[in-house]
Amino acid sequence: MLGPRPDVAYNKKRFLQVFPLVVEELLDALKAESMSEEIVEWYRRNLEYNLPGAKLNWGISLVDTVEILRGKLLEGEEYRKAAILGWSIELLQAYFLVADDIMDASITRHGQPCWYHVEGVNNIAINDACMLESALYRLLKRHFRKESYYTDLLELFLDSTYRTEIGQLIDLVTGPKDRVDLSKFSIERHLVYKTAYFSYLPVALAMHFHGITNPEQFALAQKIIIPLGEYFQVQDDYLDCYAPPEERGKIGTDIIENKNTWVVNVALQHVTPAQRKILDENYGRKDSECERRVKEVFAAVDVEGKYKAFEQAAYERIMGLVRTIPAEGGELKQEVFTAYLSKFFRYTM
Amino acid sequence: MLGPRPDVAYNKKRFLQVFPLVVEELLDALKAESMSEEIVEWYRRNLEYNLPGAKLNWGISLVDTVEILRGKLLEGEEYRKAAILGWSIELLQAYFLVADDIMDASITRHGQPCWYHVEGVNNIAINDACMLESALYRLLKRHFRKESYYTDLLELFLDSTYRTEIGQLIDLVTGPKDRVDLSKFSIERHLVYKTAYFSYLPVALAMHFHGITNPEQFALAQKIIIPLGEYFQVQDDYLDCYAPPEERGKIGTDIIENKNTWVVNVALQHVTPAQRKILDENYGRKDSECERRVKEVFAAVDVEGKYKAFEQAAYERIMGLVRTIPAEGGELKQEVFTAYLSKFFRYTM
Repeated sequence: MLGPRPDVAYNKKRFLQVFPLVVEELLDALKAESMSEEIVEWYRRNLEYNLPGAKLNWGISLVDTVEILRGKLLEGEEYRKAAILGWSIELLQAYFLVADDIMDASITRHGQPCWYHVEGVNNIAINDACMLESALYRLLKRHFRKESYYTDLLELFLDSTYRTEIGQLIDLVTGPKDRVDLSKFSIERHLVYKTAYFSYLPVALAMHFHGITNPEQFALAQKIIIPLGEYFQVQDDYLDCYAPPEERGKIGTDIIENKNTWVVNVALQHVTPAQRKILDENYGRKDSECERRVKEVFAAVDVEGKYKAFEQAAYERIMGLVRTIPAEGGELKQEVFTAYLSKFFRYTM
Repeated sequence: MLGPRPDVAYNKKRFLQVFPLVVEELLDALKAESMSEEIVEWYRRNLEYNLPGAKLNWGISLVDTVEILRGKLLEGEEYRKAAILGWSIELLQAYFLVADDIMDASITRHGQPCWYHVEGVNNIAINDACMLESALYRLLKRHFRKESYYTDLLELFLDSTYRTEIGQLIDLVTGPKDRVDLSKFSIERHLVYKTAYFSYLPVALAMHFHGITNPEQFALAQKIIIPLGEYFQVQDDYLDCYAPPEERGKIGTDIIENKNTWVVNVALQHVTPAQRKILDENYGRKDSECERRVKEVFAAVDVEGKYKAFEQAAYERIMGLVRTIPAEGGELKQEVFTAYLSKFFRYTM
């Protein structure tokens, strides 16, 4: 059912080629206001440290989606414009990651120390995160201000920001580092907030870029993407615990940081009282021996198997929704979603 | 030249009466999505702790400005709508203050501990700050989406955010806490960024609310407000050092936190080599004896007198610009600016 695989390396390469233009444009705006060299260079480092090393799946997906909707590859100025919109999503994502890493006391990100851990940065990373967010609105203003859908773009970014922050709040409040109480964990609402709405962003932006205006088409896209984004988040929780750090580019800290994840919730649903006691005593402790004991319980209740089952069911459910899109003649195309899905399913299936 | 003083207490009282509506509206949106009681209450506490205790000058100024432009008091639904726009500015301001307090390691704000210092909050304050920012866009979307100037409102808020963040970056990078180098300080650019653009916000928003569309009127307002905002920032730097904490609601930390302020820059311009040595050795140290020595040098070079002279000159300059507005018949009114000015000059003159 999947369309022909896009050449991932090529897509990433041309997307990355637009990044220096984005940086220079943002820095030129500062230089035009006679900002000191030191400030300009700080902003450059912030952008260059936190952006191009990311997975870039969100930004590239936006460009892919436009090309699928268009039915042809984008070129020249049109490609550049779509890629700038893609980099705007990556800026939003970078904003969340830089800020979340501080709050989560994370150590590494994208295979390098978290930005706040870099010498001389520390809490300036809070303002730097906010500047990554602001940068995206500079790009939108410069490149999309005259488009009829400019306000829609602003609202999509602002709505995604709000929902992602609520997701982060649920995360932080239900899993405080200093007080472990597994009975407060729950698996439901936070999934949708943490990533699902964010996953809608590349597709919705691409639809506007392509010129789709019918609200029903946007509603349909959202209906398909909510379970898809939920799946992305579950996968993210799973990989934090099970993926080798060298593949993932960061060391998983969810267990020691007392995170309310899909993984621990699934375990909590299946533990014996004795195993529950082990979790109560070892989850959320800054101690690798405690982490090991937690992972033993996870293995005993077969979290891995349950994840594979979840993944399979999610795939079926999403494909069922995708097939409700007319195979021919509609504005939306099934391939938008199958291509999106394939980018993420690759990781574990 | 100043118009009749508005009844400050009355203006504040009716502005505060709108706050519970703002809170309930924001919380209702969460409840409608079945968020847990704990999350809803956390968000409530964030809003109630960080908003109503602020000076609220920005938000109230917006309402005042609309009333001056209208030539009459606002009532009922119209007042409420203007006040909601005013609370949107206060949300943006609260976002900056909550985040800056973490970065500046501040202790108190509005006469109470800084939010990040409150038991159980800590670094969650970073996300809470971002949620205050996002909240304002929820309010705008709900109340102003159908207005012809909705996109202008979004851009004004986004532009102010970007510029204020750059101002904060200049602050943080030129005055790092761990490395004192007074030769890096300078007084020029950062003033405009830190507050001046923000000061334009209430007036520009009020002009849109009133229905002004002519870009020349906005350019004129901005031309007057840049020096006015610069003055606000200088005053803020001055008060950090000279105002009694009980009046100001916070303990000044600029000296011990190695801040690049107007006060230290003026001192640096007038010190003898011996006094400069005292500043080099004592500025930016976490030690109240060092702070005392710095203040002695400030007194010796008469920073207070220089501030009074600056304030007088700023007043003259701003009033000169204000008088370029036609006294009758124009869309803008002189009183918009004299009233704005009077809110802030009250503090020291």
